[in-house]
Amino acid sequence: MSITEKLFSRLEEKEGRMIEIRRYLHENPELSFKEEKTAQYIADFYKDKDVKVTTGIEGENGIVVEINGRNPGRTIGLRADFDALPITEETDVPFKSKNDGVMHACGHDGHTAYLLTLGETLIELKDEWDGTIKLIHQHAEEVPPGGAKSIVASGILDDLDEVYGIHLFPMYETGEVGLVEGNAMAGRSNFNLHIQGSGGHGAMPETTIDPIVAGSHFVTQVQSIVSRRMNPKHTTVVSVTAFEAPGGQNVIQDKVTLRGTVRYMEEENKVPIHDEMVKILNGLETAFGVTCELDYIYDSPVLYNDPEKTQAAEDILKNSKGGHISNIAHHDPSSGSEDFSYYLQKTPGTFINVGAKPDGVENAYINHHPKFDINEKSLLISAKVLGEVALSRLENE
Amino acid sequence: MSITEKLFSRLEEKEGRMIEIRRYLHENPELSFKEEKTAQYIADFYKDKDVKVTTGIEGENGIVVEINGRNPGRTIGLRADFDALPITEETDVPFKSKNDGVMHACGHDGHTAYLLTLGETLIELKDEWDGTIKLIHQHAEEVPPGGAKSIVASGILDDLDEVYGIHLFPMYETGEVGLVEGNAMAGRSNFNLHIQGSGGHGAMPETTIDPIVAGSHFVTQVQSIVSRRMNPKHTTVVSVTAFEAPGGQNVIQDKVTLRGTVRYMEEENKVPIHDEMVKILNGLETAFGVTCELDYIYDSPVLYNDPEKTQAAEDILKNSKGGHISNIAHHDPSSGSEDFSYYLQKTPGTFINVGAKPDGVENAYINHHPKFDINEKSLLISAKVLGEVALSRLENE
Amino acid sequence: MSITEKLFSRLEEKEGRMIEIRRYLHENPELSFKEEKTAQYIADFYKDKDVKVTTGIEGENGIVVEINGRNPGRTIGLRADFDALPITEETDVPFKSKNDGVMHACGHDGHTAYLLTLGETLIELKDEWDGTIKLIHQHAEEVPPGGAKSIVASGILDDLDEVYGIHLFPMYETGEVGLVEGNAMAGRSNFNLHIQGSGGHGAMPETTIDPIVAGSHFVTQVQSIVSRRMNPKHTTVVSVTAFEAPGGQNVIQDKVTLRGTVRYMEEENKVPIHDEMVKILNGLETAFGVTCELDYIYDSPVLYNDPEKTQAAEDILKNSKGGHISNIAHHDPSSGSEDFSYYLQKTPGTFINVGAKPDGVENAYINHHPKFDINEKSLLISAKVLGEVALSRLENE
Amino acid sequence: MSITEKLFSRLEEKEGRMIEIRRYLHENPELSFKEEKTAQYIADFYKDKDVKVTTGIEGENGIVVEINGRNPGRTIGLRADFDALPITEETDVPFKSKNDGVMHACGHDGHTAYLLTLGETLIELKDEWDGTIKLIHQHAEEVPPGGAKSIVASGILDDLDEVYGIHLFPMYETGEVGLVEGNAMAGRSNFNLHIQGSGGHGAMPETTIDPIVAGSHFVTQVQSIVSRRMNPKHTTVVSVTAFEAPGGQNVIQDKVTLRGTVRYMEEENKVPIHDEMVKILNGLETAFGVTCELDYIYDSPVLYNDPEKTQAAEDILKNSKGGHISNIAHHDPSSGSEDFSYYLQKTPGTFINVGAKPDGVENAYINHHPKFDINEKSLLISAKVLGEVALSRLENE
Repeated sequence: MSITEKLFSRLEEKEGRMIEIRRYLHENPELSFKEEKTAQYIADFYKDKDVKVTTGIEGENGIVVEINGRNPGRTIGLRADFDALPITEETDVPFKSKNDGVMHACGHDGHTAYLLTLGETLIELKDEWDGTIKLIHQHAEEVPPGGAKSIVASGILDDLDEVYGIHLFPMYETGEVGLVEGNAMAGRSNFNLHIQGSGGHGAMPETTIDPIVAGSHFVTQVQSIVSRRMNPKHTTVVSVTAFEAPGGQNVIQDKVTLRGTVRYMEEENKVPIHDEMVKILNGLETAFGVTCELDYIYDSPVLYNDPEKTQAAEDILKNSKGGHISNIAHHDPSSGSEDFSYYLQKTPGTFINVGAKPDGVENAYINHHPKFDINEKSLLISAKVLGEVALSRLENE
Repeated sequence: MSITEKLFSRLEEKEGRMIEIRRYLHENPELSFKEEKTAQYIADFYKDKDVKVTTGIEGENGIVVEINGRNPGRTIGLRADFDALPITEETDVPFKSKNDGVMHACGHDGHTAYLLTLGETLIELKDEWDGTIKLIHQHAEEVPPGGAKSIVASGILDDLDEVYGIHLFPMYETGEVGLVEGNAMAGRSNFNLHIQGSGGHGAMPETTIDPIVAGSHFVTQVQSIVSRRMNPKHTTVVSVTAFEAPGGQNVIQDKVTLRGTVRYMEEENKVPIHDEMVKILNGLETAFGVTCELDYIYDSPVLYNDPEKTQAAEDILKNSKGGHISNIAHHDPSSGSEDFSYYLQKTPGTFINVGAKPDGVENAYINHHPKFDINEKSLLISAKVLGEVALSRLENE
Repeated sequence: MSITEKLFSRLEEKEGRMIEIRRYLHENPELSFKEEKTAQYIADFYKDKDVKVTTGIEGENGIVVEINGRNPGRTIGLRADFDALPITEETDVPFKSKNDGVMHACGHDGHTAYLLTLGETLIELKDEWDGTIKLIHQHAEEVPPGGAKSIVASGILDDLDEVYGIHLFPMYETGEVGLVEGNAMAGRSNFNLHIQGSGGHGAMPETTIDPIVAGSHFVTQVQSIVSRRMNPKHTTVVSVTAFEAPGGQNVIQDKVTLRGTVRYMEEENKVPIHDEMVKILNGLETAFGVTCELDYIYDSPVLYNDPEKTQAAEDILKNSKGGHISNIAHHDPSSGSEDFSYYLQKTPGTFINVGAKPDGVENAYINHHPKFDINEKSLLISAKVLGEVALSRLENE
Repeated sequence: MSITEKLFSRLEEKEGRMIEIRRYLHENPELSFKEEKTAQYIADFYKDKDVKVTTGIEGENGIVVEINGRNPGRTIGLRADFDALPITEETDVPFKSKNDGVMHACGHDGHTAYLLTLGETLIELKDEWDGTIKLIHQHAEEVPPGGAKSIVASGILDDLDEVYGIHLFPMYETGEVGLVEGNAMAGRSNFNLHIQGSGGHGAMPETTIDPIVAGSHFVTQVQSIVSRRMNPKHTTVVSVTAFEAPGGQNVIQDKVTLRGTVRYMEEENKVPIHDEMVKILNGLETAFGVTCELDYIYDSPVLYNDPEKTQAAEDILKNSKGGHISNIAHHDPSSGSEDFSYYLQKTPGTFINVGAKPDGVENAYINHHPKFDINEKSLLISAKVLGEVALSRLENE
């Protein structure tokens, strides 16, 4: 019986326990950067096991668990995130959130449940494999600047040779595993823009500097970043998502605030988009006499799945004997963002999509929906997928 | 001693009382449409006098006092407004507002004080003049739809032959009386505009209808009403004074609200400006797929001083022997609005500016400023001006 | 018989001759700055008369004729222009233009005919009046920079005490004389704007700087000068009248040219409008990376009729015994421009509108129309009006 | 000796002749749809050969040559285009264009030379292969609607099983062969837009409908098609390439014409982009009172290289023993357009890039440049590539 066969067999035995963990976490969701109890739960899980557990990384809630195999060798990172969202759950599941207004609506409960179970099993079998596996239990994936950034910054992952992660998606069939080579998820920047004009009487515009007119010209001009300034073969989005100038009918405003988000699928465009926005704002200041204060935040970079590692993972999964995969798909890149990109900036690897569509459902509620739900069969699938990839890649030369 | 000499003499005697009334009102300001106590104070003032007092006109706080002279004849209306503003007073006068956050910052206390005193004196002398004088104590000048509208609608002023009013302005020297022939104060419309798009993820604009982009194009297009569509020799203002789309960075908004004000100095433009805005919005709906709901309110019309009556008033004042006028000026039209315009729509007359600059002041605080103050000498001046105009015009054929 | 009676009587005798002159000029129109033969005709007219004729002023075609009266005294200027327009005449008059494509479509033929006749008569009577009259036969009124500018610059009019002129307008009834006090005709600036981008393949906008997009944003932003930056009680027009970017479908342009005109009724706005356009263009350069070259020409200033002189003229005309005036009107200011404004910038005076509607016509063709025609009775009226004003004002203290 | 070996050997022998043909064509370029002499030259080439030559297809200059092999079988199309460009050649080659202002600046001379030579050789060997080869000598590739459209419409290619073509690119190294799977070249639409306003005097915008302002708003709004309305992961370009409103400074235009091009890399977007433009124009009509006449032409569709055929071609070329290929590359899709897409809409196949960089040159002049030149070694390479693909695919089951 191969190590993989043993792994699969033990994971199958633990499936019930894995689901119990997931449901416990689902009932007890915590918001990003405030997930203390969940972190404690995870830390407790590894308490009596023969592994090195590092908690409170960079003063935050991230945890890294280092499992050393039989002999020294390669080092592989496996990551699951564990924060929840400020959403009021609208499902009817018996293990519905007990923390009002907070919900595991993105499947991080499932991610954590399968990684804990996989971790435990890898620990049990650690005399049968060589090298090191680092389990990355990450906090705060949902909120900038994200938990990954600080974990990477801590240096605790500097020795990784490869890194892998999984995301559950109910829009894909349970049993489907999806891979994307190269740029797979968009990079993200956010901005807040304060336009200071000079207010006054609504009947005397000439005595004022009207920031609503200036702000509206900003919105129309900023369209030209995507439409004229970026390579049309690239993927770029600039969305102005807030225009805050509340008021009555009589007074020309003194100041307005705009907010927005930027997405790009080519890392090379991160800075140029910012530069173009600055040009537009500098021009706006001159043209309209306003003063612009731009707070522009580079958030998670483009998630880049190393083509070689992605191909390697695909080859491993194609040849898997676990019977858990019904279909290996090449998924399209997503305009969503994920801070798993920080790990991949430093270490090659790939981020794998695992289908989690509930049984008997045609159109599943998507991630972040108040009625979001996953097929719990996807937990065992995920554990098998990531476990097999990890063990195979440890053996790689 | 002529009737006018008698009037002037009595008004001079009552100057102290007039100032006392003004100070009492100043200490007890009330907001537009809520000025019950002030209305009661006014009604009480006329209680035992031989006049017909009509209160609660159209269920609001306006009061009309009818004084019948010796013989039937012409009918003249004299108006003073009595509401205050939602402003926290910042003066140091001993009779500062006792009603926190409410202030007589537009001189209506002075208007009322002089008209009460003038009214009382005209009543005392009513056996010496012919015809009818209607004193219009008007509420709610400051807030749409304004008090004038309902008083006019009630029909109580249908028999007026002429109508006059005064506004105190500290920016003009005390002793100066200003006249404007023709269009003297702007007409006003206000609007609220709801633009319904279809919200969604900030990274997926193609699945949404972005109302901020549509709204910004509205703001840039609406400039063309003034710049291209209205006669440049006319005075037109279209100000977007609010753009309400608060939010975070991730979500494209579902709906935004804009508000604004429109001013016009030629009544003929009231409807065309509205029409042009509707065209722009109909176009916006088609071009961007949004749905626009426009709530457009015609507020006070252009204040039109009848040229003949204005000339007549000027002639009367030029020949006055009262010694209260140091200068008769032709003032420029103002882009401000006044619901005295409703009276003038029905009945010819003129609205007179009376200077009220405090002694020893170079640049007086303008109307609506928290430090607004008037020169109390302007009360006697106003009473004499309006009294003399009224008595002279009653004698007119 | 007063001097004015004599003047009127002689002018009446010369009416036929005046009409002949007008018809001769009408048949022989010349374009602005090229009106050599007309200038010669005028000079010849004064050849044997006892006056000082100055021709070729500043190397151009303007002519000033100085008539000295009995005794020294005040000096009055009277101006008529004599250039024609590049219009192909479409009337059926027997004295239709013989100069193909050129037409006296603005009445300058009439202006010159009556001023020649008036001048001749004033010369005949010069022993009966005191002071000096300068007849200003001006070329090139229709084309910037206009002939007035150079005549004024020559210094030949530096000694004028007052200056008057007349324009014929067929839209007013013959017999009507119109006066406007203060700002009466708009000031004008013209501009040419070259926007240099960087051209390229229509499918690769990111490799180009698209001057059509930049130019379009200029057009939408420039609306804000009128709509937001200038006093709405003032009259301001900014029209972009040309957008020159011809081309096919495949190539993004390298450069575009825009042209336009600016009108203002308050001289104080001449420079601020220019300044605001420069701000917008500086902003455009920064925002879009284009280079803007603005050629902005201040053309004729606001035509300002001195209120006192205008009132004086009105008083003279009101009391006229000539029987030639059926109605003295107060006309509205016009958004057209006239370089008579240059004389008025230096010397007080007024520019008078004289009605010239052909008999039996309801809606006359307006100035500059190919079917433009005047009522020739207006010539005698003009001569009488200007002659009487001149003689009366010479007598003024 | 295999059939491919024989083919390669004969082609090598004919290399000099092939270059001669290319040089002859280069000296005698003809514009699209006017390439009569070139068509005659091609027809003459096949005159005495045992093939079926169809000329004058659909009344145009396209030619299809049908070669029937030993036995019936599959049918493969091979295409080369033969029109030239309206460019004045600036090279120093001894066979420079003799047709002034017309130049083979896109390599179609080379395309035709190698296909003639390949065709001749395939005819010589036709007793050694089975099936049918149709040589498509296509006119008018450079100008919409393109020659491919009519050839396809004629039905003459209805029996094709597969279709292949080559384009020479000097920007790629000679010896490099490039393949692109799926969407490889953009679809193209072109548009002409007439915006009818109502002209008038530059000083009286309110009497006009200003089409320059409307057109500028169109340009700023049309940016939103790319920036907001199309999937950002797709490739879309909307370029306004002409804005034709020439004029002076005084007259507001009556009508303007805009032109532009649209590119899309996903065929599904062809119609939606058009639809969105229509919406914007319908909105413009309502908002500005203009009338828009849009002439929108669907030009060549997205060029879609069938993935299976592309993979098959790659496999054939990878295993080639010809020694002519130094590198098989996966090229990026191009935003350029090619009417080879029409063949691929009906018949699966692939369009192959063949490197043609001149020896000793670092940065070659690109296609359509007046100094464009190819490495003539690329002719033999092209003949071998297409010949081998064709013969191999004929054998395919």
